[in-house]
Amino acid sequence: MPTYKAPVDDVMFLIEDVFHLERYANLPGFADASPDVIAAVLGEAGKFCEQVLTPLNRIGDRDGCRRHDDGRVTTPPGFREAFRDLAAGGWIGMSAPVEFGGQGLPGMMTEIVLEFLGSANMAFAMYAGLTQGAIAALIAHGSAEQKAIYVPKMVGGQWTGTMNLTEPHCGTDLGLLRTKAVAQADGHYTITGTKIFISAGEHDLSDNIVHLVLARIEGAPAGVKGISLFVVPKLLPNPDGAPGRPNSVSCGAIEEKMGIHGNSTCVMNFDGAIGWLVGEPHRGLNAMFTMMNSARLGVGVQGLAISEVAYQNAVTYAKERLQGRALTGPKYPQQPADPIIVHPDIRRTLMTIRAFNEAARALIVYTALQHDVAQRADDARARQAADDFMGLLTPVIKGVFTDTGFANAVMAQQIYGGHGYVTESGMEQFVRDARIAMIYEGANGIQALDLVGRKLAKDGGRAVSAFFQEVEAYLAEQAGNETMTPYVGPLREALTHLQQATMWLARNAPASPDHAGAGASDYMHLFGLVALGYMWCRMAEAAGRKLKAGAEGLKVRLNAKLVTGRFFMERLLPETGAQLARLKAGAASTMELPAEAF
Amino acid sequence: MPTYKAPVDDVMFLIEDVFHLERYANLPGFADASPDVIAAVLGEAGKFCEQVLTPLNRIGDRDGCRRHDDGRVTTPPGFREAFRDLAAGGWIGMSAPVEFGGQGLPGMMTEIVLEFLGSANMAFAMYAGLTQGAIAALIAHGSAEQKAIYVPKMVGGQWTGTMNLTEPHCGTDLGLLRTKAVAQADGHYTITGTKIFISAGEHDLSDNIVHLVLARIEGAPAGVKGISLFVVPKLLPNPDGAPGRPNSVSCGAIEEKMGIHGNSTCVMNFDGAIGWLVGEPHRGLNAMFTMMNSARLGVGVQGLAISEVAYQNAVTYAKERLQGRALTGPKYPQQPADPIIVHPDIRRTLMTIRAFNEAARALIVYTALQHDVAQRADDARARQAADDFMGLLTPVIKGVFTDTGFANAVMAQQIYGGHGYVTESGMEQFVRDARIAMIYEGANGIQALDLVGRKLAKDGGRAVSAFFQEVEAYLAEQAGNETMTPYVGPLREALTHLQQATMWLARNAPASPDHAGAGASDYMHLFGLVALGYMWCRMAEAAGRKLKAGAEGLKVRLNAKLVTGRFFMERLLPETGAQLARLKAGAASTMELPAEAF
Repeated sequence: MPTYKAPVDDVMFLIEDVFHLERYANLPGFADASPDVIAAVLGEAGKFCEQVLTPLNRIGDRDGCRRHDDGRVTTPPGFREAFRDLAAGGWIGMSAPVEFGGQGLPGMMTEIVLEFLGSANMAFAMYAGLTQGAIAALIAHGSAEQKAIYVPKMVGGQWTGTMNLTEPHCGTDLGLLRTKAVAQADGHYTITGTKIFISAGEHDLSDNIVHLVLARIEGAPAGVKGISLFVVPKLLPNPDGAPGRPNSVSCGAIEEKMGIHGNSTCVMNFDGAIGWLVGEPHRGLNAMFTMMNSARLGVGVQGLAISEVAYQNAVTYAKERLQGRALTGPKYPQQPADPIIVHPDIRRTLMTIRAFNEAARALIVYTALQHDVAQRADDARARQAADDFMGLLTPVIKGVFTDTGFANAVMAQQIYGGHGYVTESGMEQFVRDARIAMIYEGANGIQALDLVGRKLAKDGGRAVSAFFQEVEAYLAEQAGNETMTPYVGPLREALTHLQQATMWLARNAPASPDHAGAGASDYMHLFGLVALGYMWCRMAEAAGRKLKAGAEGLKVRLNAKLVTGRFFMERLLPETGAQLARLKAGAASTMELPAEAF
Repeated sequence: MPTYKAPVDDVMFLIEDVFHLERYANLPGFADASPDVIAAVLGEAGKFCEQVLTPLNRIGDRDGCRRHDDGRVTTPPGFREAFRDLAAGGWIGMSAPVEFGGQGLPGMMTEIVLEFLGSANMAFAMYAGLTQGAIAALIAHGSAEQKAIYVPKMVGGQWTGTMNLTEPHCGTDLGLLRTKAVAQADGHYTITGTKIFISAGEHDLSDNIVHLVLARIEGAPAGVKGISLFVVPKLLPNPDGAPGRPNSVSCGAIEEKMGIHGNSTCVMNFDGAIGWLVGEPHRGLNAMFTMMNSARLGVGVQGLAISEVAYQNAVTYAKERLQGRALTGPKYPQQPADPIIVHPDIRRTLMTIRAFNEAARALIVYTALQHDVAQRADDARARQAADDFMGLLTPVIKGVFTDTGFANAVMAQQIYGGHGYVTESGMEQFVRDARIAMIYEGANGIQALDLVGRKLAKDGGRAVSAFFQEVEAYLAEQAGNETMTPYVGPLREALTHLQQATMWLARNAPASPDHAGAGASDYMHLFGLVALGYMWCRMAEAAGRKLKAGAEGLKVRLNAKLVTGRFFMERLLPETGAQLARLKAGAASTMELPAEAF
C-alpha cells in the first residue's frame, strides 16, 4: 500500500530561501505567519495527511460512494470521521477572512496544504476544495445576508459547497445552458433543470450542501450573456440559520467512473428548487470566472500532488526491488541482484518526475503569493501586476501540471513493472485519479485556448510582456554568476523560443485564428517549460548561495537541487525547440481534411 | 458503447500499393494468398471482430474473470461461445503449417488479424495470442512427439497455451528464477514453484491448457544459464491424445488489476507437476527468445489496435458533439453549435493519432512480411537480411507502439471531456487496457535496452547499417520527385538525427555504458519516428502515384493520406531534434545523485 511523506522541508526552502517570505510581510495575514508558524502549521497538516488520509485512499477507491434508493449518498468508510477532523482542525477556512470564522492566513498556505491533501487522498480533498470555491464565490459576489448565512458554516466545515455548471448537452459551451430560473414574488427563484458531473453533489459528510448553480432566468438573452448564478441549499436554512426543510434538489444517480471513486460525482435534479440570485442577473458567468483562476490553480496543484506521491512510492520500490546488475558492474555484490535504482533508465524516470515536482511546487508557491498580493496589497499597481501574473500563469499551471502529473503517475507506475498494474500496489489508482484533472475545470485544450486566445492579448499583452521582462531581468542579473551558467544558458534559449512563438502568433493568428488554435497546446507546454525553467534557476541560485554559506546538514539536499536542476535543463527543456517548430508549422495540415475524410 | 470497423481497405492499400504483395509471391503460402483472397479473409475476420467481439469488450471489463474455491476460473459471459467460433473459423492457426492443421497463410495476415482482434477485444484476443506463442515455441523447439500431441490441438483451438516466466521476486531478471525441476526415472520431470502474472493461466475456454514453464533443473548452474523450458499440461494427455487426469498445477489466485479484466491473470502453483523438457537442458531462455520477437511484435500490434479503436470512437464523438463555434465563424449555423471536429485543437488530437496509426500499420505489415521472408525464403541471405530487420525493429515496435498507443488512447478519451471519464463511454477502458502493453513481454525500458545494448551492436552493426542504407537509398531514389519534397526533406533531417545519435552512442557507450542506458528510451523513440516517417514517405508516394493514375473513387482517401503524411512530418517528426539533444546530454545528471538523496 502506498505511503506518503509531506514535503514540508522543500516548501520551507521555497518560502524562505527562494521567495523570501519577509518581502511579503506587509500583507495582511502575513505578519502572523512567521517561518516557524508556517512550518508548525504545515507539519500538522502533513501529519494529518500522512496518518489519517493516506490509509483512507485505497479504501475510498475500493468502496466508492453508494447512492441509496431515496437519493442519499454514503461516502466510503472513514471519510465522515476524517472530514470532521479536517473541519475541526480549521483546515478548510485557514485562509478565509477572520470575520467569517477563518484564520486569515496567507492563501499560499492553503495551496500548499491542498498539495498535501491531494497527495494523500485526492478524492477526499475535493470535498474541501469545492467548499473553498463556494466560499470564495459567495464572499466575492454574495449579498451580506447570503454571506452571513452560508460562509461561516462552510468555513467551519459543517456545510459543504458545490459548483453546478455542466448539463448533459453542454460543458465547455455554457451558452447552451437550459436550466431555468423563475422569479417568485418574494424575491427568490425556482430552479428547474438537470446538472451532471457535480462533484460532491450529495454525500453524508456535512449537515447541509450549498449548491451554486448556473441557470437562465426566464426571458433572459440566449447564450452566455443570459446566465445567472444562484445559491440553492440542499436544506433550506431556518431563520436561526440551522438547516430546515429539504429543498427540491436531489441526486438522481452517481456516475461510475475511471477514478476518484471516493468522491461522489452526481447527476443533480433541480425540480422547482428554491434558490437566491448571487450578484447581478445575467452576470453569472462573470461571477464564476472570478473564482475560476483560483479553482484552476487548485486543479493544477492536484497534478503536482499525484506526481509527488507517485514519485515517493516509486523511489521506495526502486530502492527495494532487486533485479539485474548495474551496467557498470554490481553495486551490491552481497545481494542476489542490485536494487533497480542503479539502472540509468529507472533513474531517468525518477529524475524526470522529480525535476518537474520541485519546480512545479515552486511555481505554485510563487503564483499563490502573487494571488495573495493581488487580493491583499495596498498598492493598486502591485495588485494589478500580481493579478496579471496569476491570470497568465493559471491556464499554464492547470494545463501543464495536470498533463504532466498524469504522465508522471504513469511513469512511476512503470517502475513497478507488472506489480504496478495490479490494484494492490496502489500505483494504478494514482493514474486513474490523476486522469480527471486534465478534464475538469476546463479541459486542457480549453486552458490552452484561454492562454493563447485571451490571456496573451489581454490589455495589449501587458501580462506576457511583464513576464518576459521579469525573466529577462533575472537572466541579466545572473549573467555574471558563473555557477549559474548551466542553468541560465538553457533558460535563455527556451525563453527565446517562447518569445519567437509569441511573436509568430501575434503576426499570424489575427488573420487566421486557426493558427492559434492548432498551436495552442504546444504553446501552453512551451510556456510551462520556460516558467519551470525559471523556477529552477531561482532554486539553483538559492541552493548555491546556501551551500556557499556552509549549510552543513543540508549539503546532500542542496546538492540534489543543483543536480536535479541540471537534469531539468538537459533533459526536459530541449523540448521547447520541437514545440516551436510544431507551432510554426501552422494550421494547414491540421485543418485541411474534410470532416467526412476522418 | 464503443463501436469498431476493421480497417480492411487501409490494409489492402498497404499490401497492394505500398508493399507490392506480388514481390513476395515466391514464398510458400503466398501463392494462395492473392489480393482477393486476402481481402475476403480479412473481411471475414473484420466482421467477426466488429459484430461478435466488440460487444463483448465492455462485458468482459465489467464482469471480469472469477476464480472459484476449487481453483476453476470462469471467463466473462459470451467468451466461451466466441472462442469456440474463433477456433472454428480457423483464425488461431491461419498461419500455422498445414501439417499441424493450420492454413499456412502468410504470417503477415495473422498480425493484421491480431490488430482487428486487439481493437475489438484485447482481453479476449490474448487467449488466442498466447496460444499462438506456445505453438511457435513447440514447433521450433519441441520433440516430434510433443509437436504431435500439443500443436494440432492448439492450432484447432481445443487447447490453449501459456507462458510461465515471472515469479514474485523476478520478472526482468530471470536469472533469479527459483522454480525447480527434478528429473524422474522415466524421462519426465516434476516441477515445483510459483509463477505470477500468468495470462490465461486458468480459464474455461478450452479442454486443456498447455503451460510452457521456465524452471531450473536440480543442480543446474545459477543465473540465466541454468534455466530450462518445460511443457506442463493442465490435464495429462492419455495415450490417445485426449486430456486425462489432472496435473499438479493449479491457479492460486487471479490478480485484481487496472484493466484487461476479461483475461485471467493467474498466480500458478506447480506442486510437483509432471512436465517434459522442451529442447536442450539449460537452454530454456534461448528457446523463449526465439519466440520473443514474434510475441513482442504482437504486443506492439496491441498498441496500434487500441489506438485505432479509440481513434474511431473519438472521431464519431467529435462529429456528433455540438459545442462552441469554429474560430473562423459558424460552420453549421442552423444548429445550436458546431460539432467539435471544427476546432483546431480537436483536429490536432485526431490527426496526431491518425498519423501514428496509419504509419504504424504500415510498419507492422512491412515487418511481418520480413518475418515471413526470414522464415520462408529459399535464399539464405534474404532470410538473414529479413531476420536482421525484424530483430532490429521488434523492440522499437514493441516500445514505441505501446507507449504511443497508450498516449493516443488518453488523447482520444480527452476528446470526450467528462464523458470520457465515465465508464459508460468505454473510452477509459481503452486507456486501462492499453496500459499493460507497455509493461508485459519486457517493460518498455527493457525494449530500449535491448535495442541499444544488443541489437545495435549485433554482428558488427549489420542490421542498423542495412536499415540506414535502405532509407538512404529510398531518399536518393525520391530526390528528383518534386511532389515528395514535403516528405523527403523532413525524413532526411530525422534520419540524420538518428545517425548522429547512433554514432554518439557508438563513440561514448563502450567506455561508459550508463550513457547508453540513460539515452536508451529517447533513442528508441527517435528510431520509431524515423521508421514511421519512412513508412509515410512510402505511403505518400503510393498515394501520389495512384492519384496521378486517376483513381476516381479513391480521391478523398488518397488525398487524406497525403495530408496526414504532411501532418506527421510537420507535427510529429520535429521531436527527433529534442530526442537527440537529450541523448547527447549523457548520463551525468541522471546518475549523479546518491540513492539516499532520492
